[in-house]
Amino acid sequence: MIHASAQIGENVTIGEYVVIEENVTIGNNVSIRHHVVIKKDTIIGDFVQIGELTVLGKPTSSNKKMARKPGKTLDPLMIEAHVTIGCNSVIYRDVKLETGVFVGDLTSIREKVTVGEDSIIGRNAIVETNTKIGKRVTIQTGCYITADMVIEDEVFIGPCCSSSNDKYMGMGNFKHQGPVIKSGAKIGNNATLLPAITIGEKSIVGAGCVVTKDVPANKTVVGNPGRIIR
Amino acid sequence: MIHASAQIGENVTIGEYVVIEENVTIGNNVSIRHHVVIKKDTIIGDFVQIGELTVLGKPTSSNKKMARKPGKTLDPLMIEAHVTIGCNSVIYRDVKLETGVFVGDLTSIREKVTVGEDSIIGRNAIVETNTKIGKRVTIQTGCYITADMVIEDEVFIGPCCSSSNDKYMGMGNFKHQGPVIKSGAKIGNNATLLPAITIGEKSIVGAGCVVTKDVPANKTVVGNPGRIIR
Amino acid sequence: MIHASAQIGENVTIGEYVVIEENVTIGNNVSIRHHVVIKKDTIIGDFVQIGELTVLGKPTSSNKKMARKPGKTLDPLMIEAHVTIGCNSVIYRDVKLETGVFVGDLTSIREKVTVGEDSIIGRNAIVETNTKIGKRVTIQTGCYITADMVIEDEVFIGPCCSSSNDKYMGMGNFKHQGPVIKSGAKIGNNATLLPAITIGEKSIVGAGCVVTKDVPANKTVVGNPGRIIR
Repeated sequence: MIHASAQIGENVTIGEYVVIEENVTIGNNVSIRHHVVIKKDTIIGDFVQIGELTVLGKPTSSNKKMARKPGKTLDPLMIEAHVTIGCNSVIYRDVKLETGVFVGDLTSIREKVTVGEDSIIGRNAIVETNTKIGKRVTIQTGCYITADMVIEDEVFIGPCCSSSNDKYMGMGNFKHQGPVIKSGAKIGNNATLLPAITIGEKSIVGAGCVVTKDVPANKTVVGNPGRIIR
Repeated sequence: MIHASAQIGENVTIGEYVVIEENVTIGNNVSIRHHVVIKKDTIIGDFVQIGELTVLGKPTSSNKKMARKPGKTLDPLMIEAHVTIGCNSVIYRDVKLETGVFVGDLTSIREKVTVGEDSIIGRNAIVETNTKIGKRVTIQTGCYITADMVIEDEVFIGPCCSSSNDKYMGMGNFKHQGPVIKSGAKIGNNATLLPAITIGEKSIVGAGCVVTKDVPANKTVVGNPGRIIR
Repeated sequence: MIHASAQIGENVTIGEYVVIEENVTIGNNVSIRHHVVIKKDTIIGDFVQIGELTVLGKPTSSNKKMARKPGKTLDPLMIEAHVTIGCNSVIYRDVKLETGVFVGDLTSIREKVTVGEDSIIGRNAIVETNTKIGKRVTIQTGCYITADMVIEDEVFIGPCCSSSNDKYMGMGNFKHQGPVIKSGAKIGNNATLLPAITIGEKSIVGAGCVVTKDVPANKTVVGNPGRIIR
């Protein structure tokens, strides 16, 4: 089902049972596989590939217990050229995926997120709202990237890392702030990052480390709680 | 494909390529988005919203290595009014989602689970069988809620927490029992809860903590293994 | 949409909106539920069950930042008899699922992986490329099984365990090698395994343990970093 208002470029491949809603724009040489749903207003550049059973441009929803209500005016989802997206993923409105980004299967990226050029969002990774991810960043499989987080260029985050942005856990008395990871830092698998900490440039966080305070540049931290070993 | 036996209320929106099987009941003002599959006998209340590519009312299956075989007589999935469910999720038969519950994208909830009023099950969270979740509970993104667990009212579980219910890990010589989390307790992100422990009322578990024994009420535990710091 | 070249056995049930691509072979008494996508060349044995919204036989893709490029010549996905696969899962080409394997919902298994007879891959578990999983293995919900890993027979891996294969995290100066888990070993929930370590036969890794070096046979390790306690 392709809405009559959709603008579709040349040499676009569209699989079976695809839904393209109103006001969608699709560039040239795009591949859209079976059962993909492209919600209204989404903008897709040239040479983009979308895997089966993925939803693009989902609007935000909430229930009455949630602090953060959906905004009235979300921008469209914008997917630049040469982006590849896996199967069974869910990408919201008001996300920008820059040129060459790779997004794996079973991922989800919330609204008000930018992913910089050539960065990788691994399979089953989840990115919350209002987070900025730099260029040539690797976020490996199963990572949880909290809201209100900053990830600078060329950061490497190993599999299954977790982060949080709410020091008082749902009490409503703390400005939400996720970690800041400075450029070139590397985070080992299954590490835990607490709210509002900064990981300095080119620092290394060991696998399984629980980082409870700031790490200066060029240091290595390990353990629970994390301590600097060099 | 809507089975002729389905009972569908007024002002129901149904997307493209939706499948509604036999004996499904749907209330008024419900929104069912593209590619949703509603399995037989499912009961859906008024003002419910179901995201794209979600399966509702899945029966249980198993292989010969699994201890817990599917029951012969599972009740239908029951979704009360004002529930919102995300995309690409899988909810089994014999689950009850009470009024106002929010379930994110890419989640799965097994049979014999109740989720109390206005509670939140975050994106990519997985809930095992035979677990009771109270009212106004927050289970954040990526949590793993094991089987045979009790989560009382107003508990907060941060992102990526893990729990288990089998002390001897597949030996078959331990009655399976998940953790019990008493009302108002808060669990930090990526914490690990061992089988059969109790977290007392309003206690706090730090991020990355490994909780190996009971925590009394109003205490804070951190570290690996968890120790009480106040 | 069933391609004319597909070979389909007797007593096969096919749901709504299923896509079966060219050169697929399906045995007898197979059940394929709604919205399943079976990519070209996939081979499916007798009595196999495939849950809704699952993709079988996905080819590999990458972006320019990724070290490991898709091979030119991947074998087909081969699913032996009596395998059960859940909903919303993604299984790549060049995977072999042996007789009686169970794969849960929301899982993903990359290319060049074998899963031995009667093993279980839990819901939301992710398996990377070039990994061998033995017979009667249990990989519980939410596990991350890295690439280049060896899991011998009758291993038990609890929920949410994480592993890695790249000691220098994206520097490109280390031969990638995942952990080796010898037969009968048991890994507690949310444990973290570092690259290239070996867990000895019948050893036990405690919940939340961070294993940084080899564990001999028949030992128990706990803590961060893991130390032998008996």
